Amino acid sequence: MEKFNALYAQSGGVTAVINASACGVIQTARAHSDKIGKVYAARNGIIGALTEDLIDTSLESDAAIAALRYTPAGAFGSCRHKLGAIEKHRKQYERLVEVFSAHQIRYFFYNGGGDSQDTAHKVSLISKELGYPITCIGIPKTVDNDLPFTDNSPGFGSVAKYVGVSIREAGLDVASMALTSTKVFIMEVMGRHAGWIAAAGGLAAEQENQSPHIIIFPEIPLDTQQFLAKVKDCVTKHGFCSIVVSEGAKNADGNFISDQGLVDAFGHKQLGGVAPVIAKLIKENLGYKYHWALADYLQRAARHIASKTDVEQAYAVGKAAVEFALAGKNAVMPIIVRDKGATYSWSIGEAPLEKVANVEVKMPRDYISADGFHITQACRDYLLPLIQGEDYPPYHLGLPQYVQLKNLPVDKKLTTTFDIAC
Amino acid sequence: MEKFNALYAQSGGVTAVINASACGVIQTARAHSDKIGKVYAARNGIIGALTEDLIDTSLESDAAIAALRYTPAGAFGSCRHKLGAIEKHRKQYERLVEVFSAHQIRYFFYNGGGDSQDTAHKVSLISKELGYPITCIGIPKTVDNDLPFTDNSPGFGSVAKYVGVSIREAGLDVASMALTSTKVFIMEVMGRHAGWIAAAGGLAAEQENQSPHIIIFPEIPLDTQQFLAKVKDCVTKHGFCSIVVSEGAKNADGNFISDQGLVDAFGHKQLGGVAPVIAKLIKENLGYKYHWALADYLQRAARHIASKTDVEQAYAVGKAAVEFALAGKNAVMPIIVRDKGATYSWSIGEAPLEKVANVEVKMPRDYISADGFHITQACRDYLLPLIQGEDYPPYHLGLPQYVQLKNLPVDKKLTTTFDIAC
Repeated sequence: MEKFNALYAQSGGVTAVINASACGVIQTARAHSDKIGKVYAARNGIIGALTEDLIDTSLESDAAIAALRYTPAGAFGSCRHKLGAIEKHRKQYERLVEVFSAHQIRYFFYNGGGDSQDTAHKVSLISKELGYPITCIGIPKTVDNDLPFTDNSPGFGSVAKYVGVSIREAGLDVASMALTSTKVFIMEVMGRHAGWIAAAGGLAAEQENQSPHIIIFPEIPLDTQQFLAKVKDCVTKHGFCSIVVSEGAKNADGNFISDQGLVDAFGHKQLGGVAPVIAKLIKENLGYKYHWALADYLQRAARHIASKTDVEQAYAVGKAAVEFALAGKNAVMPIIVRDKGATYSWSIGEAPLEKVANVEVKMPRDYISADGFHITQACRDYLLPLIQGEDYPPYHLGLPQYVQLKNLPVDKKLTTTFDIAC
Repeated sequence: MEKFNALYAQSGGVTAVINASACGVIQTARAHSDKIGKVYAARNGIIGALTEDLIDTSLESDAAIAALRYTPAGAFGSCRHKLGAIEKHRKQYERLVEVFSAHQIRYFFYNGGGDSQDTAHKVSLISKELGYPITCIGIPKTVDNDLPFTDNSPGFGSVAKYVGVSIREAGLDVASMALTSTKVFIMEVMGRHAGWIAAAGGLAAEQENQSPHIIIFPEIPLDTQQFLAKVKDCVTKHGFCSIVVSEGAKNADGNFISDQGLVDAFGHKQLGGVAPVIAKLIKENLGYKYHWALADYLQRAARHIASKTDVEQAYAVGKAAVEFALAGKNAVMPIIVRDKGATYSWSIGEAPLEKVANVEVKMPRDYISADGFHITQACRDYLLPLIQGEDYPPYHLGLPQYVQLKNLPVDKKLTTTFDIAC
């Protein structure tokens, strides 16, 4: 049997565990070196594929590849770039065929969220539309936890754990200071359209008096008066009030509470800084001294406090992607399936790429408490398994010893360049 | 020998390890129960002492006290409140004598930073000025690392580790995204007057191309043109630029950068935070897409990633405080002494409270690079030992299992109340 090469790429916002998926892909491919040739990585996602900017992962040691399992962010570079529709941007697809063909690539693994699975789906059309035999498998990843079909999205569990740990710790801090200093603490977390990450903060509050007391979800437009009444009630009852707010929080007329006026390459508004707006609202109406934090990239890069469950699942979907390809599957994405039963267990299933692309799963309403400011037991039951276990990276001289790959380029075989915007 | 009770209190901003000092005090006192009676804790620092709001720590189990070693923030409550000068506020001191006398307290342990050691010093004057025999020992604590005499301040090493870990992780994230998305990341850290915490971020950059590329210290007024040139140079050379900025960063005319009253694109006032001001500066002049984080309390409460060295030193100064008192010392504070030698080792020394109070130690100029934007090898040599070792708390259901003490009150013996503002 002739062996063909594989191309792996990372896309969209990176996570603490996307490299664990890369590790799963590469280790599994190496274990099947009788069937798969080299694993190339596209530098910066699909852009590297279009521009023939490929990395030869076969030049990395087994130890370096193993270290990907505990190294956060995207070891090969990621991108925010979608392929155009094949009807209008046929040149992009023809270029991919040129690159695939030049490097004997017949397997394509694309690791990303909803937008990226759209790209993976489009690449999978190449076989039929252009007649080049490419096996295309998507690998799920997103801290937003908004992918359909899968029980959860690899990357999310680790952010969830970070947010739960952080708001528990900060809550103890504020409780200590509340008598003569800070009475209100606000932590802003990611989640543009869905409140999954904010919800995870709620896990830290095992009792009513514990941090966080209030969660502001993007799914529930903020009722200012109800919110201020609840803040006041918390400070009166507990001496302080701890709040988690989603970056995507909206006011009563449906607009983002904070909007920097920037859009990213996918056309999404870039948000940031709802926490200070909430702080100002509280200060002006209730007079409480406040502090606020905006974790931003710290939360999704926080491999030092990753969820062991999340790491294992991220690895498993990478491994499954290669196994799927070898089993002759195509245009699918491995998913996490929550098994039935009282204790949490999971297995790998699959979903068709065309149904995964561009779907955003929001929080079910029954995961949010009736007053809109906290999570329900159903939500807790869903979330809690995802943050279980610690998976500490190795440390050297006091800091995590993450791997820096050599990322040596594959010699170009094409003589042409390519404008990715065409 | 008649046994007298001890009073322990926590003061000022809390840290990830101030409870480790409390643990050191209480465990050591329990080990000397032949000489020390009960350890009471003043609720909310000196305020609890003035208002006779005392906690009986003898009602806490050995296990609960042991758990303080890994529980962040102030288990007994802290305060930002200084005693007045004894010449003008004699009533405050007379009140303390009433409370001490009523509860047979002859040992006073005050755990805090520079302002708090001022209070400890003032309490130590009671013996001479009011004739009540009180042994007063200060216990050092501050994330700001600005206490004199001591090699470092317990609490600092853990923040230093948090900042180093976080900016290393976020740097990997930005590096992954830089081609098509974020090119500049800015992390704002604490340190209103001294750049120690910002400097600690520099430990993550073991090579020139690693995060952080730039540090903005409060000690070095920001030269905007030099700064922008350096940001541009970083993006050109490395593809991205990672920046740590101290909350106390100042502009050329000596004002806090965060106080510039800048507004965002929509005319909203920027509410606190030097990071967004720096971000805006970069965006307007260089056009780079940015992200920024403001860790705030997350950094000083981050017990989950505490420095083992810091935890050990925090415990040791608590233990030493009790041993000092039993050895007949008074009006002193145990300090960390860095031993001579090629490898780091330390021992406990002492400093007089009157010389500790209200002194702020800034970064030596030779710890900051010539261009003002990074740390030197001398700084690295000083800082690196302080972040060594991990000391993970126990986890339960995916989150750190921090202790919540019962904090049962001691029955009041006085019939009078007290206005702390008098």
